[in-house]
Amino acid sequence: MTTVGILGGGQLARMLALDGAPLGVRFLVMDASADACAGQFAPMVVGDYTNESALAEFASRVDVATFDFENVPSESAQWLTERIAVYPNPRALGTTQDRLAEKTLFRELGIPVPPFATIDTRAQLDTAIADIGAPCILKTRRLGYDGKGQFRIKSAADADAAWGALGAQAEKVGLILEGFVAFERELSVVAVRGRDGEFRTWPLTENWHVDGVLSASLAPATAEPALAETAFGYARQLAEALDYVGVFALELFCRDGELLANELAPRVHNSGHWTIEGAETSQFQNHLRAVLGLPLGATRMVGHACMLNWIGAMPDANAVLAEPGGHWHDYGKAPRDGRKVGHATLRAESPEELAAGLQRVGAALDREAQVAPVISRLHGRRPL
Amino acid sequence: MTTVGILGGGQLARMLALDGAPLGVRFLVMDASADACAGQFAPMVVGDYTNESALAEFASRVDVATFDFENVPSESAQWLTERIAVYPNPRALGTTQDRLAEKTLFRELGIPVPPFATIDTRAQLDTAIADIGAPCILKTRRLGYDGKGQFRIKSAADADAAWGALGAQAEKVGLILEGFVAFERELSVVAVRGRDGEFRTWPLTENWHVDGVLSASLAPATAEPALAETAFGYARQLAEALDYVGVFALELFCRDGELLANELAPRVHNSGHWTIEGAETSQFQNHLRAVLGLPLGATRMVGHACMLNWIGAMPDANAVLAEPGGHWHDYGKAPRDGRKVGHATLRAESPEELAAGLQRVGAALDREAQVAPVISRLHGRRPL
Ligand SMILES: Nc1ncnc2c1ncn2[C@@H]1O[C@H](COP(=O)(O)OP(=O)(O)O)[C@@H](O)[C@H]1O
Ligand SMILES: Nc1ncnc2c1ncn2[C@@H]1O[C@H](COP(=O)(O)OP(=O)(O)O)[C@@H](O)[C@H]1O
Ligand SMILES: [Mg+2]
Ligand SMILES: [Mg+2]
Repeated sequence: MTTVGILGGGQLARMLALDGAPLGVRFLVMDASADACAGQFAPMVVGDYTNESALAEFASRVDVATFDFENVPSESAQWLTERIAVYPNPRALGTTQDRLAEKTLFRELGIPVPPFATIDTRAQLDTAIADIGAPCILKTRRLGYDGKGQFRIKSAADADAAWGALGAQAEKVGLILEGFVAFERELSVVAVRGRDGEFRTWPLTENWHVDGVLSASLAPATAEPALAETAFGYARQLAEALDYVGVFALELFCRDGELLANELAPRVHNSGHWTIEGAETSQFQNHLRAVLGLPLGATRMVGHACMLNWIGAMPDANAVLAEPGGHWHDYGKAPRDGRKVGHATLRAESPEELAAGLQRVGAALDREAQVAPVISRLHGRRPL
Repeated sequence: MTTVGILGGGQLARMLALDGAPLGVRFLVMDASADACAGQFAPMVVGDYTNESALAEFASRVDVATFDFENVPSESAQWLTERIAVYPNPRALGTTQDRLAEKTLFRELGIPVPPFATIDTRAQLDTAIADIGAPCILKTRRLGYDGKGQFRIKSAADADAAWGALGAQAEKVGLILEGFVAFERELSVVAVRGRDGEFRTWPLTENWHVDGVLSASLAPATAEPALAETAFGYARQLAEALDYVGVFALELFCRDGELLANELAPRVHNSGHWTIEGAETSQFQNHLRAVLGLPLGATRMVGHACMLNWIGAMPDANAVLAEPGGHWHDYGKAPRDGRKVGHATLRAESPEELAAGLQRVGAALDREAQVAPVISRLHGRRPL
């Protein structure tokens, strides 16, 4: 029997195991924390990714490895690649781990990006702010996630505060300054590429972030077919350039009908969680099919879907469970400020039914602010 | 965190754990065999159901218990009930473990059944064959499954052979003689009842058996609304009479537009596996919602679905995985003659699309005989 190894034991690994089990494979999860939530449904090797003996044990027990966590050190990924099959490949991982390398690749492929500049010193920050113009965002090049490692600069006067917050990290993880995009919408393409190069995308997803963390996703996004085709084309170009195998998400800003690439997540992605109930094949199952060299599943929608993220602590489940299309996902994690502990997906046969369900759930959970932007998008379904 | 205990560690327990995990609960499976396939995704207590120390360990580690296996001795179920919550209740389990008690209940509730008689002696068999008429079927009252423990009597001359095959079991598990029903169709109602008495049914399912083992299920079955309502009414009467909590299946024969009850399976059921992809909420998730006292999920169909059982060994997965609506379920079991090792579900937006998919899969796997009755039903969709 084939065993799939997953580096990282969070909710992504957990959902990979749950949704991949029907393929008849087993899983082995590696995580530094013994109580990583994927460990509730899969055996674990507890150890740090830089711990060679733990990595060796992991490698000896799996047939193919993949990632729940994109910031596995590239040396560890490389070490594994010399021993077992690893998807996506370490180059894809390495490129997407570094916002500078990633944006440079976008630009090389002719994919529009916000203006950006690498920042090594305090002086470079001033120059770059002058070049790019405020508002802009200073970000760590590596290891940022969920909006962490970012500082928003409203005007040149904020440069000191920005440097105070992130300057110390310039040497260790690098810094990048990006122009702030006054986008109308954020979109993502969740896509999958097989070992044989077959490429598929799920319908375009619209996303809403709060404090840099995903709050809600809606699929399908209302978009002109031409816009969706452009987005899918970018995703395909990137997948081919990186010889990518597995699922990834391309995050895009949409401003004045133009798409700008933000980042590429080299793994199953929070904005694709709705695919569990809202698509013929989920991102989790298709990631495993890709990694295992199996035929990819259909990515067509089954109805209309909205995912709501639960951050910090789980709300009361009953309001969602009582909805006709309500699906609950509790990751089995202890509550903690800012932590992604679960999500809900509402699935419906029509946009109107979906909006009505969101209204009820928002009211019952006192989360009107979370559902409001989705509801207003559903009410005013004008293509972008 | 709540832990759900499951007595029995087969594919039903496995799918209960996989589909129940998103509710944020943990599972503990008890099975006499350490390599029971549910153990690949849930921790286990290895022990026989009559082993009191193993049962005590199980009880001490779970909050509520339920069944993957309906033939847990009623004393074990009773013993557990005195210590923890157990759903369904031991009376429901006890009644449905015994074909005589079960059919007696059907009759008491006014639910039509084939003629039947209890058989304790060889002489009673002759009398009963004369009364009921041939063809008829001699069955063990207890412990039969997948057509095991049955002998088909074509004429009175087969009485000796039938007694030779099953007579020795008359004392231990009891015997029952049933009239053979020359049915046009076999149907099942998969239903769920909550702790608060809420009752829901999935759409009626049509089933095809080969050698007493389920081969294919189609949902929704084409049936006049009145026929479906009658079937749902029987299921509700039974659920209420037994104060049933959880999912169960009522198997029915349909002959000349009349329904006859065959048996009630007090658990999630093979004829409900299609609900994983073909219904808003699967039988597995709803069983857990019921057992946990949570709101029940919607049982509406999402498209049209056909489940194909894989018996003995898994066929090549690729033909199913390559289908637009193809879903694969490998239970992670070693192959063995007559063993249920997995199933596939094809989901489609229309009966025509479903028939076309079945045609392709049947041809690719050289299993035309398995798909043929389903395809012809889909082509001649006349209500019963
Ligand atoms: N250049 C930008 N202009 C406008 N908003 C931005 C920009 N960069 C990031 N954001 C906002 O912050 C969110 C998180 O930033 P992102 O770069 O995607 O980092 P992370 O890796 O933490 O997801 C984005 O989804 C977007 O809402
Ligand atoms: N009385 C009967 N008349 C006709 N067919 C029967 C009868 N009893 C059983 N069968 C056939 O055998 C199959 C299995 O029998 P069943 O009583 O349901 O036992 P099991 O517990 O093994 O499922 C049924 O689904 C049906 O196809
Ligand atoms: Mg992002
Ligand atoms: Mg049966």
